[in-house]
Amino acid sequence: MNIVSLDFEGVLIPEIWVGVARKTGIEELKRTTRDEPDYRKLMEFRMDILRRNNLRLSDIQDVISTLSPLEGAADFLYEVESLAEVVILSDTFVEFARPLLEKLGYPFMLCNSLIVDDDGFIKDIVMRQEDGKRKAVEAFRSLNCRVFSSGDSYNDLSMIDAADVGVLFRPPENIVKERPDLKVFVDYPSFLEEIRRFVG
Amino acid sequence: MNIVSLDFEGVLIPEIWVGVARKTGIEELKRTTRDEPDYRKLMEFRMDILRRNNLRLSDIQDVISTLSPLEGAADFLYEVESLAEVVILSDTFVEFARPLLEKLGYPFMLCNSLIVDDDGFIKDIVMRQEDGKRKAVEAFRSLNCRVFSSGDSYNDLSMIDAADVGVLFRPPENIVKERPDLKVFVDYPSFLEEIRRFVG
Repeated sequence: MNIVSLDFEGVLIPEIWVGVARKTGIEELKRTTRDEPDYRKLMEFRMDILRRNNLRLSDIQDVISTLSPLEGAADFLYEVESLAEVVILSDTFVEFARPLLEKLGYPFMLCNSLIVDDDGFIKDIVMRQEDGKRKAVEAFRSLNCRVFSSGDSYNDLSMIDAADVGVLFRPPENIVKERPDLKVFVDYPSFLEEIRRFVG
Repeated sequence: MNIVSLDFEGVLIPEIWVGVARKTGIEELKRTTRDEPDYRKLMEFRMDILRRNNLRLSDIQDVISTLSPLEGAADFLYEVESLAEVVILSDTFVEFARPLLEKLGYPFMLCNSLIVDDDGFIKDIVMRQEDGKRKAVEAFRSLNCRVFSSGDSYNDLSMIDAADVGVLFRPPENIVKERPDLKVFVDYPSFLEEIRRFVG
């Protein structure tokens, strides 16, 4: 069996926090894993900003529900699903992801979750496990599946390296420079061709 | 994260081989895992019958493409997908499953595959791994997911037992008698309620 594991943000949907930053006008929320590879540090930074700006989880969910998948993403995903099993491996949170997953026909996703306090503010994050993307890829390989992995960020590199085939999709320049060994795709048609080659 | 793992045949789609038996008029093809728990033996029996009746993989695929999901299955699946991550764990073969998966919006599925000879006859089966349903459930639990499992047949019992919560859906009488410890559901609305309880 062939499995295609894809990062969510930057591959199928826009960066959620960039969208939130834009809608709320809070520039600091534009910081992503592309800038700060330590995800817990990044999330603590974000939670602190939200609280200081009096933004509850429901406010963020309202913003997220106005976001759309990237242009062409739904058709691309459907094509991939016709070729192989698809799993989205993301470091985002189920509480954020569901409205966007619905717009993509509910692909299978493994990600993290949030803890919310009594006032509705995000209090903490629950990381499903350390280096969860890599461990998911390893688990699928242990089930005798062949795995293709792709993402755009630092937090995708370990799952890309753990897969049978791993490539970058629309990565920033610094990752391209650091990992000249990885193929880079920037549009869905050529990315789909690479997946077709993997499926064989 | 909550994962709902479902058997395919008998839970979301009709028994493929029963449908093939009906369309081809070959009564012996109605034998299922409900009758013969040893899946490899059952498949060798089926492959032998197909060859003796001059039926190639493409003939079987033609029959399968005329089958539909069980009544209410697509809506049920969509509801479950809105609550949790869904994985179909089946002992069928990707070559058979794809036309039916398409009719259900391509849920994520782990199953087996076929080897076809130069003349287009099914030559052998490739079981992804021994007791693959149970191992898949165990793998998801090792990724810190909570797993709900359900199926109707002997080959589902190990995954039902390996899950956090496991129930039977539309099982035959012999399994109900052998496993009085397992809850039994026969319609989608009550089954969905049980899944809602699991998700919490």
